Amino acid sequence: MKRIMITVAYDGTAYHGWQIQPNGVTIEEKLNQALHDLTGENIRVIGASRTDAGVHALGNLAVFDTESRIAPEKFSAALNARLPEDIRVLKSEEVEPDFHPRHCNTKKTYEYRIYMNRFENPIGRQYAHFVYVPLDIANMQKAADYLVGEHDFKSFCAVGAQVLSTVRTIYEADFRKEGDYLIFRISGNGFLFNMVRIIVGTLLEIGRGNMEPEEIEQILEALDRQKAGPTAPARGLLLVGYEFMEK
Amino acid sequence: MKRIMITVAYDGTAYHGWQIQPNGVTIEEKLNQALHDLTGENIRVIGASRTDAGVHALGNLAVFDTESRIAPEKFSAALNARLPEDIRVLKSEEVEPDFHPRHCNTKKTYEYRIYMNRFENPIGRQYAHFVYVPLDIANMQKAADYLVGEHDFKSFCAVGAQVLSTVRTIYEADFRKEGDYLIFRISGNGFLFNMVRIIVGTLLEIGRGNMEPEEIEQILEALDRQKAGPTAPARGLLLVGYEFMEK
Repeated sequence: MKRIMITVAYDGTAYHGWQIQPNGVTIEEKLNQALHDLTGENIRVIGASRTDAGVHALGNLAVFDTESRIAPEKFSAALNARLPEDIRVLKSEEVEPDFHPRHCNTKKTYEYRIYMNRFENPIGRQYAHFVYVPLDIANMQKAADYLVGEHDFKSFCAVGAQVLSTVRTIYEADFRKEGDYLIFRISGNGFLFNMVRIIVGTLLEIGRGNMEPEEIEQILEALDRQKAGPTAPARGLLLVGYEFMEK
Repeated sequence: MKRIMITVAYDGTAYHGWQIQPNGVTIEEKLNQALHDLTGENIRVIGASRTDAGVHALGNLAVFDTESRIAPEKFSAALNARLPEDIRVLKSEEVEPDFHPRHCNTKKTYEYRIYMNRFENPIGRQYAHFVYVPLDIANMQKAADYLVGEHDFKSFCAVGAQVLSTVRTIYEADFRKEGDYLIFRISGNGFLFNMVRIIVGTLLEIGRGNMEPEEIEQILEALDRQKAGPTAPARGLLLVGYEFMEK
């Protein structure tokens, strides 16, 4: 028996998110099927991030155990031959038998893409949230700066999420412009359910002038989801990847 | 009666190209339908470029005549409200009644995107041709340089195309790298049926080392489609736009 870790990229447009569910096709299900086709074993992968419906990933991680004699690094090509083209296993490697991607100290990075113009760009519309109202990017950055550091992000967590603690550390929260795209990059030691999308929804309220940048401090202190802005659409969100800080 | 010119962007993935045909939905058909919904008139647009199935555009042009009293610049928003989200009218303006986008002297620019890596990138796969074999980009550029200027491009024209002359002038034919993408930008006074895709298919043969860069001269001289490389896939091709050089 060995434990294999895979790095998975996907276009989330056609999927009901990562996690297996009764109504709708998921990334996890497609990976389990491909592993069954390949090895004949009933393998259940464990994902590092259970991304929502419509969210994309360049580098999500998953582990699984197998009795197969396939060399660890050969799983990527073998699985890609059995997966739909909107899911690709970029890398496969053996890890320690007790390695669990959700239990280790990681830096996780997301990007959220906003397309700013009079009309939406049909090219790449699946990967961006379209906003035609002018945005005050300087104010959005000022507000984002308040998020960096260790905070209780309860106000930015979807109601009903089951977690022991809503305290997380944010390492960076930066906007950059690329042509007509505004890209928000955020990294931290972990993110609560819908946290990045609620942060972006709140920063967009600030960008539109409906809230002052300073109000983000009061929202953090309130520990109340109702105080934050709406949840931004899934299609703009991309899980960029993981860095392991220690085992 | 006035003549309106529209600038149209589209994701060609779901369409059987620009031109109306019996089996399959086309961009032209969607525009005619939206114009009928808007004005009640039976309007037939005339497109500048009849792009193939699966080819994308950032700035194709079309003209139509209308008796409608809608202000010329208002057509874009009104049409977008009646079009699917993979087609957007970016601009609408009145032109002279005898203006025809295919009969004027224009500079037309295309880009062809190649994704070079071990595995395909699922994000944006609709807009790139995936190549996992290493490419000699310097040799591809050397070959592309032979194409610049006025030449008879008969060898780079799909067999069966009905044209009076296969002579065209190419102004630029340049490769650039953006991360793992290799982007070929080509502009000219006009392009024959499948010309850009046959050029890219031939340059890829050179990049893979199956042909020498100098052979492109012999291919041009042969005036024979059989001498050139295969037609590269539609999904990598993007019509960037038009510049009018004179009326």
